[in-house]
Amino acid sequence: MEPSYLGLHVLLELYGCPEDRLRLPDDSERILLVAAAAMGATVIEARFHAFSPHGVSGVVVIAESHLTVHTWPEHGYAAVDVFSCGDLDLSAGLEVLEQEYGASRVYAERVLRGKGLGG
Amino acid sequence: MEPSYLGLHVLLELYGCPEDRLRLPDDSERILLVAAAAMGATVIEARFHAFSPHGVSGVVVIAESHLTVHTWPEHGYAAVDVFSCGDLDLSAGLEVLEQEYGASRVYAERVLRGKGLGG
Repeated sequence: MEPSYLGLHVLLELYGCPEDRLRLPDDSERILLVAAAAMGATVIEARFHAFSPHGVSGVVVIAESHLTVHTWPEHGYAAVDVFSCGDLDLSAGLEVLEQEYGASRVYAERVLRGKGLGG
Repeated sequence: MEPSYLGLHVLLELYGCPEDRLRLPDDSERILLVAAAAMGATVIEARFHAFSPHGVSGVVVIAESHLTVHTWPEHGYAAVDVFSCGDLDLSAGLEVLEQEYGASRVYAERVLRGKGLGG
């Protein structure tokens, strides 16, 4: 039996993404907002920045916690986090993220936050 | 030998925190900004919200990636993430977070992001 917990946190490693999809804050903002919508999340705000020396850093605060992304265009790689403490359709959101970033290799680590609490 | 990677992500589980330290967005904003300063991070922006039904949801975007927090005052628990892709003093930041939230039990999980890249 899975222990009780407060939040489900998915650490998504997206490798082999086309470089041009990782360069612009607007593209990542669109992708994360589509993912949030697919999950059924309530978006509070979205903040995206050009990242130094290149790539994107972004966060979508949702009523149910957050999504974040950091991209390294030069490596074709994006690190995406989906942290949820609500009853969301996470798999729908993860599918959007994989497809929209065009990843050829995907690793997802699922971490329970606040283990032993809630339930 | 540790593999090459792009980012170091610490998932911090803070249990047994005094409830009154977890209730207000302003308190968490102050704590995360002090932690970011202790790490030597360059703060881009900080966004903190009251969380439903109570508690706080917040993010500090730094030039070197991000810090996030979600608090559950009713459980005396805070989930803090410190994601860094720069040369920061993470341990100084983590010490601030543990002390300022007054956690009695702390678990930290260290995850390498973008393994096999960079280095």
